[in-house]
Amino acid sequence: MAEEKLPTRAEDFSEWYNQLVLKAQLADYAPVRGCMIVRPYGWALWENIQGALDRRFKETGHQNVAFPLFIPRSFIEKEKHHVEGFSPELAVVTIGGGEELAEPLVVRPTSETIIGHTWAKWIQSYRDLPVLMNQWNSVVRWELRTKLFLRTLEFYWQEGHTAHATRQEAMHETRQMLDIYTDFAVNDAAIPVIPGRKSDAEKFAGADITYSIEAMMGDGKALQAGTSHFLGQNFAQAFEVRYLDQNGQLQHCWTTSWGLSTRFIGAIIMVHGDDQGLVLPPKLAPYQAVIVPIYKTDEEKATVLETARGVKTEFVKAGLRVTLDEREGVSPGWKFNDWEMRGVPLRVELGPKDVAKQAAVLARRDRPGKEGKISAGLADLPATAKRLLGEIQQALHDRALAFRKAHTQDARDYEELKRAVETGFACSYWCGSAECEAKIKEETRATMRCIPLEQTGGSGVCVKCGQAAQERAIFARAY
Amino acid sequence: MAEEKLPTRAEDFSEWYNQLVLKAQLADYAPVRGCMIVRPYGWALWENIQGALDRRFKETGHQNVAFPLFIPRSFIEKEKHHVEGFSPELAVVTIGGGEELAEPLVVRPTSETIIGHTWAKWIQSYRDLPVLMNQWNSVVRWELRTKLFLRTLEFYWQEGHTAHATRQEAMHETRQMLDIYTDFAVNDAAIPVIPGRKSDAEKFAGADITYSIEAMMGDGKALQAGTSHFLGQNFAQAFEVRYLDQNGQLQHCWTTSWGLSTRFIGAIIMVHGDDQGLVLPPKLAPYQAVIVPIYKTDEEKATVLETARGVKTEFVKAGLRVTLDEREGVSPGWKFNDWEMRGVPLRVELGPKDVAKQAAVLARRDRPGKEGKISAGLADLPATAKRLLGEIQQALHDRALAFRKAHTQDARDYEELKRAVETGFACSYWCGSAECEAKIKEETRATMRCIPLEQTGGSGVCVKCGQAAQERAIFARAY
Repeated sequence: MAEEKLPTRAEDFSEWYNQLVLKAQLADYAPVRGCMIVRPYGWALWENIQGALDRRFKETGHQNVAFPLFIPRSFIEKEKHHVEGFSPELAVVTIGGGEELAEPLVVRPTSETIIGHTWAKWIQSYRDLPVLMNQWNSVVRWELRTKLFLRTLEFYWQEGHTAHATRQEAMHETRQMLDIYTDFAVNDAAIPVIPGRKSDAEKFAGADITYSIEAMMGDGKALQAGTSHFLGQNFAQAFEVRYLDQNGQLQHCWTTSWGLSTRFIGAIIMVHGDDQGLVLPPKLAPYQAVIVPIYKTDEEKATVLETARGVKTEFVKAGLRVTLDEREGVSPGWKFNDWEMRGVPLRVELGPKDVAKQAAVLARRDRPGKEGKISAGLADLPATAKRLLGEIQQALHDRALAFRKAHTQDARDYEELKRAVETGFACSYWCGSAECEAKIKEETRATMRCIPLEQTGGSGVCVKCGQAAQERAIFARAY
Repeated sequence: MAEEKLPTRAEDFSEWYNQLVLKAQLADYAPVRGCMIVRPYGWALWENIQGALDRRFKETGHQNVAFPLFIPRSFIEKEKHHVEGFSPELAVVTIGGGEELAEPLVVRPTSETIIGHTWAKWIQSYRDLPVLMNQWNSVVRWELRTKLFLRTLEFYWQEGHTAHATRQEAMHETRQMLDIYTDFAVNDAAIPVIPGRKSDAEKFAGADITYSIEAMMGDGKALQAGTSHFLGQNFAQAFEVRYLDQNGQLQHCWTTSWGLSTRFIGAIIMVHGDDQGLVLPPKLAPYQAVIVPIYKTDEEKATVLETARGVKTEFVKAGLRVTLDEREGVSPGWKFNDWEMRGVPLRVELGPKDVAKQAAVLARRDRPGKEGKISAGLADLPATAKRLLGEIQQALHDRALAFRKAHTQDARDYEELKRAVETGFACSYWCGSAECEAKIKEETRATMRCIPLEQTGGSGVCVKCGQAAQERAIFARAY
């Protein structure tokens, strides 16, 4: 597997991605068009993402639940923007138990409607609020052009749903979850992201405001890596989610929803990957270290393997995720390439000479060649490995941030914007009109990614129409 | 909520169950017939079950994966017993993205077929074996008579799937997973189970042999709480899952599958619950302890709450799952009832007098009244709580086992069997014929639950036909 070379990213970034997902055994195409099979290595990565997020959700008081897969089709039609946005993408069950159904069931594309319907029953009084829920599941949207992880008919995600007594509380929640996504992306995935507000054209069907985190991929394109929606009272009104306030008055709730999906795995691949394959951030990598034993004779094999197993035990004790590659019939060099392709952050090379001097060679995945290798004593190998993993985590983030900065331009006029989006992000004043946004998209294939929360202040003129503009926005071609 | 009394189990076991699931907020009815919403308290219980099983699966080398929700209908038809068993229960998607599909898609009732199809691609050589996979997901079976957790259209479970080079290895795996289910049931859920072999009539559609764990509920009925299937080469032949052996010969794989579902929550409710409500085993309980502060004046409230928060912190530090009930507007007595109904194993009562003497009252859920209460010093409260939780865990198991023994009879003739299944299990010699099995079912409504792995040896005559019989089987009415 590892012998067939990937195309380089410069040659064909899209094909590099497609082949890498398959070769690294992250995922495979399913026998159903547009669906994917997430393989053990890919799912282990997703489980680590789940763990990192779930911990944050629970620390902020959210509880996990499970609402059904099926939603009565009539529910989708109750919120007018929602039905417009999702109707074309629905998978519909019309037969159950051999009989045609009286009312067709939709396979959930997202769960605002069925949750709204249920909250109308559960929520009675201000004492019942806030309601802070999340669920880990899969949803289905009938996409025509699909790509593993980035856009599939069925995808895995979490969808958070909350209900509040006041606009202010719901807005606070919306922003809090955006902050949590940002913190996770930066600190666990080593992906610098730009948190910001979407335009009306790009927001969620049914939201008043959609916030997102936007990341730059290795080809300069943008990827929306997580979204947090302020839903106002739209769904509360459609489903009559109301509560009695302290004064005995019936009020509609204010709701939010927020989600992050297996798409994020695509971001990890495209932000950190290089021409040799995956490069996984240590905090999320299924294996943080791989031990590759090196030997020729049976005698060497016995000594080396015994020591290698001891090293593995010490790593496990130190809380590191480690694997020992004992495969027969393939050379150490082949194993090096294989694990490089699969992005394991740290390789431990152990041969007879190393054993003799009670040492091992540690090779960093993020620094190819001799530069990334050090010899370290076995006695404190877990400690050395931990230190290096910390350095790798930081280095990946810093490299991605430097790349994004190098490929982001303050585009002051339209010509600069056009040039900028050829290779990365353009940051430009925008008047806020949907018309300018649409023209830019049509003429440059770049979309308005977000209006970053962090603004430099001041004002300027719209990059498209020249009218006065208060905010700067990010424009880029996107996945 | 806690004010409205449940019916007693003696009055109406079925209604006691239905009301308890709702009142304890484990689950609710969904707006789609036969589907359920698992509420936070129920899902937290399921997460603990998942954790306990997933750890065991990983320790035995299994890796988690995710195969798609949709399966081409033609796949289901490839294994002849499988199609017979599952066809009547399928939910079928016929419309996607607004268009009628050329081939309808089935919402998975279980994943043997799509996994078989995929393994035919992934598995080439004996070096690729064994393949040891598991997935946590939901599946859909169009059931007509549903009951929360016990039988719902959509239910949550794990489905393990493995492929092996030899019959012997696959059989070993099948039995190993049965052992794991048994170990989990006994040691984590405090539910004594009988591991055994199902009859041909009761086995999985497509299996050569089905093993199950059977538990006795509080009304004497049986519940199948987990199954492990030896699939022989049935699916490997249907989907051409083959490998080149060491001699270069093409061989079909031997496969297994095994599953445990949210049904198990129904077992926990019905095995341990009493007339006051749930009784949860400490190892799986979402909260192992609840602290209820008791006060009248504001001054008392300040002192008691301060101490209570300190106790909570100490419990968390000691690795206990604990909640502090600070709700206003309800009395301590009301809270006691509420948490009893929700089955929290240990209650910590803390009033001003307790604080004055630096102590608290610990009340065991499994022993109502004064008998289950002790006063303990605050200094070693977490240690005392841990000890009590261990005792409760054991006591629940012992009580359930004693109950099962008291309601299991060695029925030597058919009259004895008829009487036995009125109140529990009959253990009887059975000739093994489907005819006797069917007659017993028709005449007594008791089904052959399993032929226990543990046999006393010896032989006898079939409880139904009087022919010679080598094995004893469990007959019972079942959920």
